[in-house]
Amino acid sequence: MRTSSIIEWQEDGITLKEDETGRSDSSSSRGEVYVVGIGPGDLEHLSIKAFQIIKDVDVVAGYNTYIDLVDELISKEQEVISTGMTKEIDRVEMALEAAQKGNRVAIVSSGDAGVYGMAGLVLETVDKKDLELEVEIIPGITAANAAASTLGAPLMHDYAVISLSDLLTPWKVIVDRLKRAAGGDFVVVLYNPKSKQRQQQIVKAREIFLQHKEPATPVGIVRSAKRGSEEMVITDLENMLDEEIGMVTTVIIGNSETFSFADSMVTPRGYEV
Amino acid sequence: MRTSSIIEWQEDGITLKEDETGRSDSSSSRGEVYVVGIGPGDLEHLSIKAFQIIKDVDVVAGYNTYIDLVDELISKEQEVISTGMTKEIDRVEMALEAAQKGNRVAIVSSGDAGVYGMAGLVLETVDKKDLELEVEIIPGITAANAAASTLGAPLMHDYAVISLSDLLTPWKVIVDRLKRAAGGDFVVVLYNPKSKQRQQQIVKAREIFLQHKEPATPVGIVRSAKRGSEEMVITDLENMLDEEIGMVTTVIIGNSETFSFADSMVTPRGYEV
Repeated sequence: MRTSSIIEWQEDGITLKEDETGRSDSSSSRGEVYVVGIGPGDLEHLSIKAFQIIKDVDVVAGYNTYIDLVDELISKEQEVISTGMTKEIDRVEMALEAAQKGNRVAIVSSGDAGVYGMAGLVLETVDKKDLELEVEIIPGITAANAAASTLGAPLMHDYAVISLSDLLTPWKVIVDRLKRAAGGDFVVVLYNPKSKQRQQQIVKAREIFLQHKEPATPVGIVRSAKRGSEEMVITDLENMLDEEIGMVTTVIIGNSETFSFADSMVTPRGYEV
Repeated sequence: MRTSSIIEWQEDGITLKEDETGRSDSSSSRGEVYVVGIGPGDLEHLSIKAFQIIKDVDVVAGYNTYIDLVDELISKEQEVISTGMTKEIDRVEMALEAAQKGNRVAIVSSGDAGVYGMAGLVLETVDKKDLELEVEIIPGITAANAAASTLGAPLMHDYAVISLSDLLTPWKVIVDRLKRAAGGDFVVVLYNPKSKQRQQQIVKAREIFLQHKEPATPVGIVRSAKRGSEEMVITDLENMLDEEIGMVTTVIIGNSETFSFADSMVTPRGYEV
């Protein structure tokens, strides 16, 4: 996979320069697709590579909300393909069609595109339709790490990432995973804890945790982590449901060693401090 | 926590400009400590914020190897505190001493500083010694996400991150977590799979997985993910031990739905493609 720019470090700034294989070299008609994790939302947490790709491509495709997050980076010369939330398959097909016409296309996804994001769907579609496209996945900072950094350092030890959305996964599979993660004393990060349609999953998840963990186990709740006006609270299993939890919330439940102090939630790695 | 620079987007470049609360305003003598995740290694996967902080601080502290990774960003005016691998506590104490003198200090850690990194140790030390310091954790792209992007999209569904290092964690705790993660059909990411001193952990981990998963379960092995000359191979549980696995290797074991094609390893999210 070629990279069309190189980075130059300068006093107080980054400059992207095109190299010999830069975008002016469009002799190859083979389309290129970049699936780009844009991080939690605030542009300062975007990787330099993601920045570079979004600035550089012909077409940027994504869910409306994610397009809005990177809007500042998109120029008038670039085409934008944006769709609503449940239109993942349409969005990917439109993006891949644009690439097949020889365009360089970035499909953007919040966080890391490879964590409950668009990377898998793009690769599956390219495989199933046997498309002649080059696909590159650009990693990003996923919500688990963004929320953890806001809370302090809750992920310093083994952790499990579990989505409470049962739209595409049977609820009994999720329950089984919650039990095993709680029983194994993993730190647990919950994605998609609650939505308008799904109110009870977080209630049941808490019940499962209480069967394995102390009621005083620290729980960190972060809304809109590193995306504009983030809010966080550190509570515990006993009281966590008193807090506002919604679509843009990430919930982190500590292991048996996790403790909180001041505004921080920390899971010790095991050093003698 | 103040941010001393703002970002300006320009044609083909990022410029960091000081804002009103910029570094020239050093009226506060209270030291500031930033624990900075520098991502997998290649500077293009550094976040813009991490870049900004490293350029901006008075002192950069870290393990020699990590200092080398960001060496290009450090100027002659900045002080560098670097120590060997097992000197984490010394390194943190030296960095915090520098901060207590009123310096702005960045403690750098590869990947995300909050995942088996330095963030927890810094916060624990500040708490225990009751130091008057402002600490901010800057998230980064952790090895799980970096390696996954190289392999394709293996982390599209629930996953567990487990370190095989038993230096600070009893081996029986690790074994229990491996069993639960395998039994719950999580995708599993193994950090620190092997070192010169620890050769058998990966062998035993594979045995545990084989008790719960098919021998043909895809396994992705990435060496030096997004750090210079990365190498990756997609194999399976049956054959994984034939591959070179070492200190800078990340191993990802698929769930029961994970499949591989061409050079990609993908865990389906559940969409009908």
